[in-house]
Amino acid sequence: MTSSTTSRPGGRSAKVRDAVYTAVGQLMGEGTASITVPAVAQRAGVNPTSVYRRWGDIDTLLEEVAVAALTREGDQPPDTGSLVGDLTQWAQIIVDDVTRPHRTRYLRAMVSARSGEVEACPCWEQRRGQSRTIIERAQDRGELVPTVDQVLDHLIAPIYHHVVFGLSADHAYADRLVRDVVALSAR
Amino acid sequence: MTSSTTSRPGGRSAKVRDAVYTAVGQLMGEGTASITVPAVAQRAGVNPTSVYRRWGDIDTLLEEVAVAALTREGDQPPDTGSLVGDLTQWAQIIVDDVTRPHRTRYLRAMVSARSGEVEACPCWEQRRGQSRTIIERAQDRGELVPTVDQVLDHLIAPIYHHVVFGLSADHAYADRLVRDVVALSAR
Repeated sequence: MTSSTTSRPGGRSAKVRDAVYTAVGQLMGEGTASITVPAVAQRAGVNPTSVYRRWGDIDTLLEEVAVAALTREGDQPPDTGSLVGDLTQWAQIIVDDVTRPHRTRYLRAMVSARSGEVEACPCWEQRRGQSRTIIERAQDRGELVPTVDQVLDHLIAPIYHHVVFGLSADHAYADRLVRDVVALSAR
Repeated sequence: MTSSTTSRPGGRSAKVRDAVYTAVGQLMGEGTASITVPAVAQRAGVNPTSVYRRWGDIDTLLEEVAVAALTREGDQPPDTGSLVGDLTQWAQIIVDDVTRPHRTRYLRAMVSARSGEVEACPCWEQRRGQSRTIIERAQDRGELVPTVDQVLDHLIAPIYHHVVFGLSADHAYADRLVRDVVALSAR
């Protein structure tokens, strides 16, 4: 529990954040092609300056909203007792999540808002952390494992690729990717 | 050589296509967030109706321009004499191509223009054809090979994923992906 007024739940700061998140969600939900800080501010009923001061630019804001929407804070990956079980369930959860129309819209809006390379992508780092958890648990059980990067490159990246480009991504696709990445395992 | 006036090089149809392609390229180059048929038509100095009649919608037009820009018609993948050589050169060519700022902009515009799933993605089908060529040549030499889908899923998809999301994609990344997909080879 913090005593800072800027982060107190229900405080002015939290109200601005909620209004801005809701505005972003509404604009996304309406399929707005290009979401801008002024558009978000107007919808949220706040001053654009408040949005710029807090988030810097629209890219940072969309990223934060996407992280909040796509990967709940502290989300733990499945713990089924085997590497293949964990990866299969985890990949299916991700497929179910990102193929929902409003989630796909979030991802496409993120891509559209990107320019150049990013220093780090919080969504991606969250997936890296979950991948590491699954791998380390499997290692502790003495299983052969792929690397964390191999899981990101060969299981997660193809799912995101298919979803944002509008190619089919379902459980069968996820299962096929899991089989391949497990085949890359080494001690 | 065809006698049809609609496809005769230098004919009215070709002039419209060139003007429209140039307009799309200009709008992309300027970093226009949302490219629309009316905007393209205005820039190209043609009637929007001509654009709608020929391409149907902006998504189809952007896709056609992207295919033309990203994968030259009849482009043959490298033929180095080995599977690992072909995949390495091919992946490096793709990385060099799609990481150029205006190419990345094309891809992001394609993603941004997508809604729902697509029946087929010409860019992707072009990559599938190139992947098949490389695999079949390797099989003819008696090499162990991954499947065409494994090459698309584990070599091409991660490169496109990294580029559109703004994560780093370079030759070292391509080489790492090639090593993994070659490790999936079976007779």
